[in-house]
Amino acid sequence: MKSLQCEIIAVGTELLMGHVANTNAQFLSKELATLGISVYHHTVVGDNPARLKDALARAQSRANLILTTGGLGPTYDDLTKQTIAEAFGRALYYHQPTADRITHFFQKFGRTPTENNFQQAMLPEGSTVLENSQGTAPGCFLEEGETMIAMLPGPPRECQTMFTEQLRPILTERSGEVIVSRSLRIFGMGESAVESLLREEMEQMTNPSLAPYAGGLELELRITAKAKDEAAAAEMIAPVEARVKAVLGDQIYGVDVASLEEVCHGILLEKGLTIGTAESCTGGLLAKRLTDLPGASGHFLGSFVTYSPAAKTSLLGIPETLLQEEGTVSPVVAEEMAKHARVKLGCDLALSTTGVAGPGPDEKGQEAGLVYIALASDGHCFVKRIQVGFRSRDQVRQTAAQYALDLLRRHLQGKLSEQ
Amino acid sequence: MKSLQCEIIAVGTELLMGHVANTNAQFLSKELATLGISVYHHTVVGDNPARLKDALARAQSRANLILTTGGLGPTYDDLTKQTIAEAFGRALYYHQPTADRITHFFQKFGRTPTENNFQQAMLPEGSTVLENSQGTAPGCFLEEGETMIAMLPGPPRECQTMFTEQLRPILTERSGEVIVSRSLRIFGMGESAVESLLREEMEQMTNPSLAPYAGGLELELRITAKAKDEAAAAEMIAPVEARVKAVLGDQIYGVDVASLEEVCHGILLEKGLTIGTAESCTGGLLAKRLTDLPGASGHFLGSFVTYSPAAKTSLLGIPETLLQEEGTVSPVVAEEMAKHARVKLGCDLALSTTGVAGPGPDEKGQEAGLVYIALASDGHCFVKRIQVGFRSRDQVRQTAAQYALDLLRRHLQGKLSEQ
Repeated sequence: MKSLQCEIIAVGTELLMGHVANTNAQFLSKELATLGISVYHHTVVGDNPARLKDALARAQSRANLILTTGGLGPTYDDLTKQTIAEAFGRALYYHQPTADRITHFFQKFGRTPTENNFQQAMLPEGSTVLENSQGTAPGCFLEEGETMIAMLPGPPRECQTMFTEQLRPILTERSGEVIVSRSLRIFGMGESAVESLLREEMEQMTNPSLAPYAGGLELELRITAKAKDEAAAAEMIAPVEARVKAVLGDQIYGVDVASLEEVCHGILLEKGLTIGTAESCTGGLLAKRLTDLPGASGHFLGSFVTYSPAAKTSLLGIPETLLQEEGTVSPVVAEEMAKHARVKLGCDLALSTTGVAGPGPDEKGQEAGLVYIALASDGHCFVKRIQVGFRSRDQVRQTAAQYALDLLRRHLQGKLSEQ
Repeated sequence: MKSLQCEIIAVGTELLMGHVANTNAQFLSKELATLGISVYHHTVVGDNPARLKDALARAQSRANLILTTGGLGPTYDDLTKQTIAEAFGRALYYHQPTADRITHFFQKFGRTPTENNFQQAMLPEGSTVLENSQGTAPGCFLEEGETMIAMLPGPPRECQTMFTEQLRPILTERSGEVIVSRSLRIFGMGESAVESLLREEMEQMTNPSLAPYAGGLELELRITAKAKDEAAAAEMIAPVEARVKAVLGDQIYGVDVASLEEVCHGILLEKGLTIGTAESCTGGLLAKRLTDLPGASGHFLGSFVTYSPAAKTSLLGIPETLLQEEGTVSPVVAEEMAKHARVKLGCDLALSTTGVAGPGPDEKGQEAGLVYIALASDGHCFVKRIQVGFRSRDQVRQTAAQYALDLLRRHLQGKLSEQ
C-alpha cells in the first residue's frame, strides 16, 4: 500500500489558552512512528467550526490520514463530527448502540442523561464507530477517496485508550505489516556518550532501526523492526540487541521495563528479599518510589526519614560525636545509616542517602549536589559518592534517589563488584 | 492600539516524532492571555524550510503577531532565522556582541566553539536581539508592516526565560497597559462546585475577570485586571478578592502561593513549630513534600515510614493486638501513629496516614482509596477519614498526602475546628 502521511488536528480552546499541553499529539505521534506512519504537521484550533473547516481543507491537501482530537463532548454539541461530516458531505445518524451505552453509563452512577448527552450518539454515515471504554463520547473512523480520517476524544485518557484499543488495530491492518520494538533502558550514561559508542549502528541501520530517546534522568534505546509478522521482527531485533548489550553491558538496567523501581521490585519479590531505607536529603522520596508499585508490601518494610541530625541519633542510634566529627554528609554517616536501618527494620537490605540538596552549600561548605548513598546487606556495606552538577534542589533529590535505586539494582543483578 | 492576534509556530521534528510535547506553546499561550493577546492557532512543522515557509505565509494571513520556537540551534544552521529573513526580504548580518557571548560561554566551560556555533550570531537586519541567558542561541524580534514576529529557541528553559526576560516587556509596552493577576488556590472543592457559587461573577465580569483553572488535585481561581498601571489594577482586584473570600472562606488555602506545602512551610517557620510524619500508604511521599522547599530543616525533623504492620510495632511501638483488633487501616491506628511519632521525634506536630493505596482492596475487604489521616498536637489528635474514588494507586497516594497537608494547613491557620 502507499505510504501514509498524517496530520494531527487538535480542537480545543483550552489548548490555545494554555490550560493544558497538547499531550495527545505527542502520544499519537509516538505511536504512529511505531507504525511507520509519518507525521508532518500538528495543528491546534479552538472550538470554532470555521477554523476547523479551514484546518481540515488544509490537512486534506497535504495528508492522507487525518486524526482529530477533541470536540466530541456534549458541551460543544459535536462540533468536530458535525463539521467533518459536512466537509465530507455525510449526514449524521442516530447510533442506537451508542445511545444505549450512554444510558447504561449514567445508570451505573445513579444519574440521568440529559438531551445533550445523546448528541454524542449522532455519527457520520458510513463511519466505523470507535468505542470509548473510558467515557461516553464515541470516536469514529471514515474514508473518503484517498483520505482516512479518525476522530478521537480530547481527554488524554479517553483519546489514548481509544487509539490503542480501537484505531491502532485498524491502522496496523491497513499497513499490512507489524512494527515491533524492544526498549533498553539506561541510567548513568548520557545520550552523547551512548551515541559515540553506537554511532554507526544508529546512523546506518534503518530496518531494524536503533534510536535513543532521552527522558528525565534516563535514556531509552529503542530497536524497532518492521516485518510481515511478530516472529520475523523478533528475529531481526535479536542480533542488534545482542550487539548493544555487548557494547553497553551493565549500563542497561532492563529491557521492556518502565523504571529502575520496577526492576528492583521484580527481583526482590522473586528472591524473597526485604528492604528498607534511611533517608536524609531525599526526605522520603526513595521510600515513596520503592512503594510505587502494587505488591510493594511483599518486600518493603519501612523507612527512617532522619532529616535532622537529632533524628539520626534518636531514631537510628548514630552517635552524636560521629555526626560532629564526620559531618552528617559523609561516607561514614551514610554507611552507619544503612547499617542501623537494616538492623532496626530487620530487613535483608537497607539503602541510605545523605547529601546537600541545596540550593546552597551545607554548614561545612560542601556544595549542593554532593550525596553519599549506601547499601547495607548481610556482612557488607557499599558506599557511593555522587556529585550532581548544575541542578535544582528537586533534581538533586530525584537524581540521588535514582542513583540509590541503581545501586540496589546492580546489587540485585549481581553486578555491583564489577563497577 | 489595535488588538493582537497571535499564532505560535513550533519548528522541530522531535515534536512530530512525539519525543517531546509542545509545552512551549502552552507556556506562551498562558502568558499571552495575561497580556490580553488572543491565540487562534498553534502549528508544528518539522525542521524543513519549505514547510516552515508555508506555515509562515499562512500565519501572516491570519495573525499580526507570530511567535516561532525552535530551529535556532547550531545543528540546523539557523533554519528558522534564515527562512524568516528570506520570507521578509531581509539579509542576515553578523552580530559581533552575540559572537563574543558565544566565545565567552564556551570559555567558561573550557571548550572551544566550532564554526557552526557562530552561525547563531547571524541575525536578520533591522531586528531586535533577544538575549538568551540560558544558552548560546539568541532570539530576535522584528516588524514588517502590520506583522510582528519573534523567534525564540526550542529548549523550554531557554524559550520560557527569553520570553519572560526579553519579549514580554516589548509586548507589554506595545499594549500600553499592564495586566495584573491574583491567584487564589483551593483544594477540596471541584470546579463545578466553585462555579455554581460564583457563576455570575465568572460569566459577567470581563475586567477584572474571574476564571477557574483546574490542575492536578487543585483548583486555581485567577482574578485578572487590565489597567494603566499596577496600582489601578490592584484597586480593581481588591473587591473581587474580598467577594470570593467571603463566598469560599477556608476553602482558599492561600493567595499567590504555589502549593499547600509552601503555605505550611511558611507558617511552621514563622511560628517556630517542628513537625514529623508517620506514614503507611503514602510511603514517604508526605515527608518528601514537606522537605521539598529549601529551609525545610528549620521545621521538619523526620519521619517513620511504617509500611509493614511489624514496622508499626517495632518502630512506633503500636501494640500488635491493637493492629489485629482494629486493622492497620483504621482511625485508631492513624491516631496512634501520629501520637507515637510526635513523642518519638520530639516534634510539636505529627501527621500520619494509613490507607488502602490499591489497586485492590485490603485483607479486610476495605476498598482501595480509603485513607485515615491524623494530626497530633499537644494534648489533641484530629483524625479524618477520606475515600478517594475511581483513581489509580498513584492518585490515591497523592490525594492522601494532599489531604494530610490540608489538615495541617487548617490547623496552622487556626481553622481546624470550623470544618
